[in-house]
Amino acid sequence: MSLDLKALVRTIPDYPKKGILFRDITTLIEHPEGFKQSVEQIAERYRGQGFTHVAGIEARGFIFGAGVAIAMGVGFVPVRKKGKLPGETIGQNYALEYGVDTIEIHADVLGAGNKVLLVDDLIATGGTAIAAVGLLRRTGATVEDAAFVIDLPEIGGAAKLEAEGVTVNALMAFEGH
Amino acid sequence: MSLDLKALVRTIPDYPKKGILFRDITTLIEHPEGFKQSVEQIAERYRGQGFTHVAGIEARGFIFGAGVAIAMGVGFVPVRKKGKLPGETIGQNYALEYGVDTIEIHADVLGAGNKVLLVDDLIATGGTAIAAVGLLRRTGATVEDAAFVIDLPEIGGAAKLEAEGVTVNALMAFEGH
Repeated sequence: MSLDLKALVRTIPDYPKKGILFRDITTLIEHPEGFKQSVEQIAERYRGQGFTHVAGIEARGFIFGAGVAIAMGVGFVPVRKKGKLPGETIGQNYALEYGVDTIEIHADVLGAGNKVLLVDDLIATGGTAIAAVGLLRRTGATVEDAAFVIDLPEIGGAAKLEAEGVTVNALMAFEGH
Repeated sequence: MSLDLKALVRTIPDYPKKGILFRDITTLIEHPEGFKQSVEQIAERYRGQGFTHVAGIEARGFIFGAGVAIAMGVGFVPVRKKGKLPGETIGQNYALEYGVDTIEIHADVLGAGNKVLLVDDLIATGGTAIAAVGLLRRTGATVEDAAFVIDLPEIGGAAKLEAEGVTVNALMAFEGH
């Protein structure tokens, strides 16, 4: 039952702009065994280690994060774009190529005694992931692990996230940006 | 193992505007058993009926839809907001209270022979769900079932979706708008 998961990721050239090879995970998740196997490979690495929650980053991180949470039998915390959560929130800014963006979680979520696995589809610069880890930690929760489907190691985000005290795993890596 | 799932949904008054009782599912999904049980209740209803895919509507529908896809062992198709998918897309407009919005799927996804379960967190007017069913059917796929966590029957969306030939199920219903 070992599919070649990497072969199920489609590469779209020049998206979202010229020179970028966009790694498209929709072809992976549309494949029943591909989606199940990628989620299961993440879940099995972290089972039995006391995790209470998976946090997923909007929006593709919701797909993998929710799947991993179900496969692990833990709760799911959505890390959302600004203005999307209905309750009182705390937020964290992070730099984009041009400008600044903000992610938010509910102010009353998690807290000390909770152990969170961060999940997203892809790590490139790591900017969003580092902001998410900082935000989740502000609740008092422990956040020492992050799992991605795809790493782009030449961009170096995983190394930056490791420098923040987070152990990073990815199911596959692609060369280039 | 029968949690009161409805009791795990938090109600936030006057959000997003005065007079609206917003049903917040984040408190349900953050609860490990609550998330697992809500996903499992949906999945068990549809197992063994030949479904090939779950389609989830961005963004909260990704959370439940991906969970249900994993629990059923089928593929997941993201129904996204305009401009978010990297490949060639087909789109469907739908009316909002003020204005029009568009949802999209990849043009090459699904097709005849596929059977899709539409999943979203909540059905109110049904506008997005009806647009999603129409869009998914344009690929040639069969879409005759939709599952929601929450129905607001007084608004009447479920009845409108049923009139489009879709059998609707929801885990719970709330009175009011």
